Amino acid sequence: MRIGVLTAGGDCPGLNAVIRSVVHRAVAGHDDEVIGFEDGFKGLLDGRFRPLDLDAVSGILARGGTILGSARLERARLREAAENCEELARSYGIDALIPIGGEGTLTAARMLADAGMPVVGVPKTIDNDISATDRTFGFDTAVGVATEAIDRLKTTAESHQRVMVVEVMGRHAGWIALESGMAGGAHGICLPERPFDVADLVKMVEERFARGKKFAVICVAEGAHPAAGSMDYQKGEIDQYGHERFAGIGNRLAAELENRLGKEARPVILGHVQRGGTPTAYDRVLATRFGWHAVEAAHRGDFGMMTALRGTEVTLVPLAEAVTELKRVPADRMDEAESVF
Amino acid sequence: MRIGVLTAGGDCPGLNAVIRSVVHRAVAGHDDEVIGFEDGFKGLLDGRFRPLDLDAVSGILARGGTILGSARLERARLREAAENCEELARSYGIDALIPIGGEGTLTAARMLADAGMPVVGVPKTIDNDISATDRTFGFDTAVGVATEAIDRLKTTAESHQRVMVVEVMGRHAGWIALESGMAGGAHGICLPERPFDVADLVKMVEERFARGKKFAVICVAEGAHPAAGSMDYQKGEIDQYGHERFAGIGNRLAAELENRLGKEARPVILGHVQRGGTPTAYDRVLATRFGWHAVEAAHRGDFGMMTALRGTEVTLVPLAEAVTELKRVPADRMDEAESVF
Amino acid sequence: MRIGVLTAGGDCPGLNAVIRSVVHRAVAGHDDEVIGFEDGFKGLLDGRFRPLDLDAVSGILARGGTILGSARLERARLREAAENCEELARSYGIDALIPIGGEGTLTAARMLADAGMPVVGVPKTIDNDISATDRTFGFDTAVGVATEAIDRLKTTAESHQRVMVVEVMGRHAGWIALESGMAGGAHGICLPERPFDVADLVKMVEERFARGKKFAVICVAEGAHPAAGSMDYQKGEIDQYGHERFAGIGNRLAAELENRLGKEARPVILGHVQRGGTPTAYDRVLATRFGWHAVEAAHRGDFGMMTALRGTEVTLVPLAEAVTELKRVPADRMDEAESVF
Amino acid sequence: MRIGVLTAGGDCPGLNAVIRSVVHRAVAGHDDEVIGFEDGFKGLLDGRFRPLDLDAVSGILARGGTILGSARLERARLREAAENCEELARSYGIDALIPIGGEGTLTAARMLADAGMPVVGVPKTIDNDISATDRTFGFDTAVGVATEAIDRLKTTAESHQRVMVVEVMGRHAGWIALESGMAGGAHGICLPERPFDVADLVKMVEERFARGKKFAVICVAEGAHPAAGSMDYQKGEIDQYGHERFAGIGNRLAAELENRLGKEARPVILGHVQRGGTPTAYDRVLATRFGWHAVEAAHRGDFGMMTALRGTEVTLVPLAEAVTELKRVPADRMDEAESVF
Repeated sequence: MRIGVLTAGGDCPGLNAVIRSVVHRAVAGHDDEVIGFEDGFKGLLDGRFRPLDLDAVSGILARGGTILGSARLERARLREAAENCEELARSYGIDALIPIGGEGTLTAARMLADAGMPVVGVPKTIDNDISATDRTFGFDTAVGVATEAIDRLKTTAESHQRVMVVEVMGRHAGWIALESGMAGGAHGICLPERPFDVADLVKMVEERFARGKKFAVICVAEGAHPAAGSMDYQKGEIDQYGHERFAGIGNRLAAELENRLGKEARPVILGHVQRGGTPTAYDRVLATRFGWHAVEAAHRGDFGMMTALRGTEVTLVPLAEAVTELKRVPADRMDEAESVF
Repeated sequence: MRIGVLTAGGDCPGLNAVIRSVVHRAVAGHDDEVIGFEDGFKGLLDGRFRPLDLDAVSGILARGGTILGSARLERARLREAAENCEELARSYGIDALIPIGGEGTLTAARMLADAGMPVVGVPKTIDNDISATDRTFGFDTAVGVATEAIDRLKTTAESHQRVMVVEVMGRHAGWIALESGMAGGAHGICLPERPFDVADLVKMVEERFARGKKFAVICVAEGAHPAAGSMDYQKGEIDQYGHERFAGIGNRLAAELENRLGKEARPVILGHVQRGGTPTAYDRVLATRFGWHAVEAAHRGDFGMMTALRGTEVTLVPLAEAVTELKRVPADRMDEAESVF
Repeated sequence: MRIGVLTAGGDCPGLNAVIRSVVHRAVAGHDDEVIGFEDGFKGLLDGRFRPLDLDAVSGILARGGTILGSARLERARLREAAENCEELARSYGIDALIPIGGEGTLTAARMLADAGMPVVGVPKTIDNDISATDRTFGFDTAVGVATEAIDRLKTTAESHQRVMVVEVMGRHAGWIALESGMAGGAHGICLPERPFDVADLVKMVEERFARGKKFAVICVAEGAHPAAGSMDYQKGEIDQYGHERFAGIGNRLAAELENRLGKEARPVILGHVQRGGTPTAYDRVLATRFGWHAVEAAHRGDFGMMTALRGTEVTLVPLAEAVTELKRVPADRMDEAESVF
Repeated sequence: MRIGVLTAGGDCPGLNAVIRSVVHRAVAGHDDEVIGFEDGFKGLLDGRFRPLDLDAVSGILARGGTILGSARLERARLREAAENCEELARSYGIDALIPIGGEGTLTAARMLADAGMPVVGVPKTIDNDISATDRTFGFDTAVGVATEAIDRLKTTAESHQRVMVVEVMGRHAGWIALESGMAGGAHGICLPERPFDVADLVKMVEERFARGKKFAVICVAEGAHPAAGSMDYQKGEIDQYGHERFAGIGNRLAAELENRLGKEARPVILGHVQRGGTPTAYDRVLATRFGWHAVEAAHRGDFGMMTALRGTEVTLVPLAEAVTELKRVPADRMDEAESVF
């Protein structure tokens, strides 16, 4: 069998672990050939690829990033790819394509699969917001980085009687904020799923100070927003890459709290450190298992599917299911977290 | 409501996170009182306890160990406790007891529950070998410590053309060896669940050297043992605490490999560093959720139960179920791991 | 002997290690009494202090922050303290005062010493900019945190062909940027000591892309600034605490590079995570040695002095020397760093 | 100029950082050529080498081990090399040789230098026992790993009322035990420089238990030994590589303490994890500076020298000085450490 693999979308610790696992299982386990397309679907369309043997993936298990590169691709070119996908597959001589990526990538993968390409997807997002799988690799690493930051900020906040606002990733789903906030023992957690009332945060801080706990750490997802009327907030300057420059919710909330509380409140915007670097052991194991099972699926002819974690098992789910709905933090998880401050 | 909490058995990162969560949920959420018994069931029998309020659990979330202490208790004294358990509960005025512990503790908990004590157990083991729950807290931390060690040993092995044998914890179940071996990219993994053949390991190393990969790292669970006739091995001197002194399987296997290969093979016995210290974010979240749900169960009157993770949900399972069977690494997980070296 | 100790100024990993060491050496080694003033000089003036015995400092060695708290004090009140300092010392019955702090604190310490207070200072700054000592504790931790961030960002930058601008602490001296930039292998380092030319950075990035290295990481001290005419830059909105909100040099430089290069350039502002949390082993050892030597100095009557590291020795230097000149990165260290990209 | 570089002796975090720095400075700074000999002096004698350009050292800064490999060489072959060293240098066309290694390597380097080879040495040892330099790279990483282990063990010891004996590296000098013991807050530190009396350790532990601190952690260098008559101890079985198998001082001391105290005492032998893996920021900076200065020395014609850290400066010292005396822990550093338990 000849298998093509590619990585697309934003960075995510564990991508290299999947690539390595695909190659190990395919080459050593099935005597397959594997080729890796460069820069995601772009390489597939532009004919940029290289053979991947055991040596090519040596030493990459613990390395962040992706040895294959990743890049954005316009929808129009993807549609074009879908139209010619049988020819594409034939031109590379591949019997299976394993794209590793997030929601956008999996949607593209589905488009290709519907058009006849033999596809097995591997889901990837540090945001953990793909509904068909219990967890995605990359998420545990992101939560670990954010938690270590909160641990560090807490000692400073406590010693210096200060409020700290930590902004973590999560535009549409608040999983990173939820779990790093719980793990770090944040005193407030603001998620995209539930608009926050600044007055509640002010009250929480004041009550803490009143009972002698003269500090607070608040963990805010970048996609969190204040309840209507609770605080004057509009998105800041948006740059050409869709990022809000200079004044995201973390900065604004710290400024607002400082004004209302009359106490120092400092923002910390963690940013990209959450999505790069060495993956945790958890993420390496999950990524490795996903790679292994994707190869097995290809050998069984289970196409149009995606690997998924359900409980302790890695299973396959239809790509169609995977991308229909964003997995958001449910209300009971928010309640759980809020009551353990 | 008045809740008693205790920790028993070996150390496990996340114990303090459970205690803190129980107190936060009970005191802040339900206006309960909480008392903590010292040194496990001993404190319960000897009347050693202290009140636990919010201040008492301040700052312990990320701390290893247990602020309540832990100690062994003889079966005889436990039986005695069971016989008088209604009186015991009455004497402390507790409406619920939350023991946090491993298999032995949960068996004791079940004995008390059967005798009429209102018990909600919280499972704890770094070995991850309790069958009623997908995962236990402490395990992720242990795997993380072991993986970091393998990462470090690999670079030395590679630069110095050496075989390294890393012995990790796991007497009856090989979960730590399985996952740290996978995450660290060990070239051989030996588990209690499947006797290993030294000849296979020798062959693997020789094949690696033959194709220019002049090093190997082998991850061995302390409870792994050679297949009959594969290697001369008998347990070493056993001390009064049940530990094998000086020459466990890691040491023996390294010596055997050195002899057979004619190459340097060094053992590293990780030991207790795997079970102490700051828990990972994953373990803090799981421990916190277990504590929260144990309190909720107590308030609902769900006694004789134990918290458990099933998929992404924390649920309750009967204590009876929890302790009947050891969760061992299934064959498909071993196959999965073995084919990704 | 009766010794007073206090911590003043910004947070710095290792403060608790000094306090612990002072108490251990004084109480266990000399049978002294130790009291700790709360919130820096404020506690000294307001009479807020507590006895510190061995139990009081148990378990704090590895903890960030300061158990004594820290706060700003207006110059006027300090002068007042200086005027009454003999009375102050008498009122507390202290034979020596050990203030632990940065430049401002040591200047205050000198003022008190000149007025007759028996003072032995301990220098503290994550910025490493006190000229009388080779190194200060806290610096190694800050560099470690910044280096880990650069490590993480590098893999993302490489996989996604991106420029990353990491802003680290250092308003007047660029030591953190210098050493974390070197340790992380940043491709550009901008320090307060040497205005940077944006055109040079643009050229460096373009040359890297031209030779196939399609990414770059630039490490910028918060106090770095562009050479005159090199880039349009003025300090952003300054808040009441003297911090530049929203748009420091890191944000501005990333925006400028993005415009000039026509490539994505993302800023990461590390902020307060650099100054909190568990100190590195290096910082714990240095802090412990400083505490030990401060007590010894007090017992020898070496007042008006400050502990300092010179080579491998901890010595004492006059407070007067310590605070006259800021230790900035010398030109040869900058040349050294710039040539190893 | 054409420069040869090689790494010899045991593993040490930072070796790759030196190699990278040599190549960067030589190639990018001076337009030199660099070749790397494989497996230490063996490659030099056997003609195994490869060109090292910027690409060859890309991505190795933070990686443990050495990309050039390392191996032992018999004295006899080294002498042979010394006799032919002018011819050797000519045959490779090298104008300078930069060997990176420990005491043995530097002695060999001196032999070659005396015989006319243009040599600039770079000292390397995790043990920090080379007298001509304040510090060596690798040491900080080793201390960091050992300290993290002690941190973890302490929480277990405390919760479970146990004595832990941690054996760290250091056969002839106790620097790692000294600094990790101080940083981890060990309650006893045993160094090769000062025979320990088991009775003192027993007394210390008993006093701790008496005042309610029912645990202790003791940090022992592998080369530490009991004072005459203090404990029955003879070295265990020594293998062909000079290592004591199974029962080093850590194991023996734990057994002895358990017997005398009647309390559980567990040994942990850290072993090779101390000398592999990612170097700390400190070690990367020092290694990078050493590489830079070695190249500069070669260009100035300063041969027969070795790089050394003195205070904050990297200087050159004659190889002759470097290897005459082992740098051992002085008495005042031991006193300092012992009084801060």
